[in-house]
Amino acid sequence: MKKQPKVSHKRMATKRLNPVNKKGRPMSIPLKLDTIHHVAIPVPNVAQAVEWYTSRFNCGVEYLDDTWALLAFANTKVALVLPHEHPSHFALTRPDANKFGDLVTHRDGLHSVYITDGFGNSIEVLEEP
Amino acid sequence: MKKQPKVSHKRMATKRLNPVNKKGRPMSIPLKLDTIHHVAIPVPNVAQAVEWYTSRFNCGVEYLDDTWALLAFANTKVALVLPHEHPSHFALTRPDANKFGDLVTHRDGLHSVYITDGFGNSIEVLEEP
Repeated sequence: MKKQPKVSHKRMATKRLNPVNKKGRPMSIPLKLDTIHHVAIPVPNVAQAVEWYTSRFNCGVEYLDDTWALLAFANTKVALVLPHEHPSHFALTRPDANKFGDLVTHRDGLHSVYITDGFGNSIEVLEEP
Repeated sequence: MKKQPKVSHKRMATKRLNPVNKKGRPMSIPLKLDTIHHVAIPVPNVAQAVEWYTSRFNCGVEYLDDTWALLAFANTKVALVLPHEHPSHFALTRPDANKFGDLVTHRDGLHSVYITDGFGNSIEVLEEP
């Protein structure tokens, strides 16, 4: 077996952040954490998906039309979107969203930019309302 | 063009939920909403992904090893996972998680079951701690 160089993830995390906690785990909480605005789930039929989600989970329907819906959960929202309109992604709000790229105004009036994490995942950075 | 039957999504939503709001949008908020526990993002290298996310966003590293990491945001968490271990999914907590299927104990000590929404998306239903 090829010998792998030993990488201390614990050290990596704690070096750029804070000391480990009592259990030796990397533990760092910045003073102000970013907020996850929504998680977007691609579905072929929005109305059917709203029916599926609302009949199983305690969530509120904040918005609904033929092309997307917004479900409110206790701490964040789930957007049900058509696959050809949006990739699967999560969105977070930042006061400096424009530093991540040119903001686009969306149908809900919010301004955001989509970025990728380099690992194949899309993230929407929303301007803090 | 084939004539489509007119479906009132607004009516559908309001019928099974509550009256529309002042803007005519379907609006319903159950008394107790379910909480989104985390969003899981598949990444090929957890340490590199932690570096990518923590260097761009205000989030805390709650847990980190070679196979997964948990990032704390203001209102929920993002789990960075290896693609062959977990599908892309979001997790919500329910007191009646066992009604969704047989619960499995995970490495973090939590009990949950994975379900699919029938549209190709995975959802983890976690027993409320």
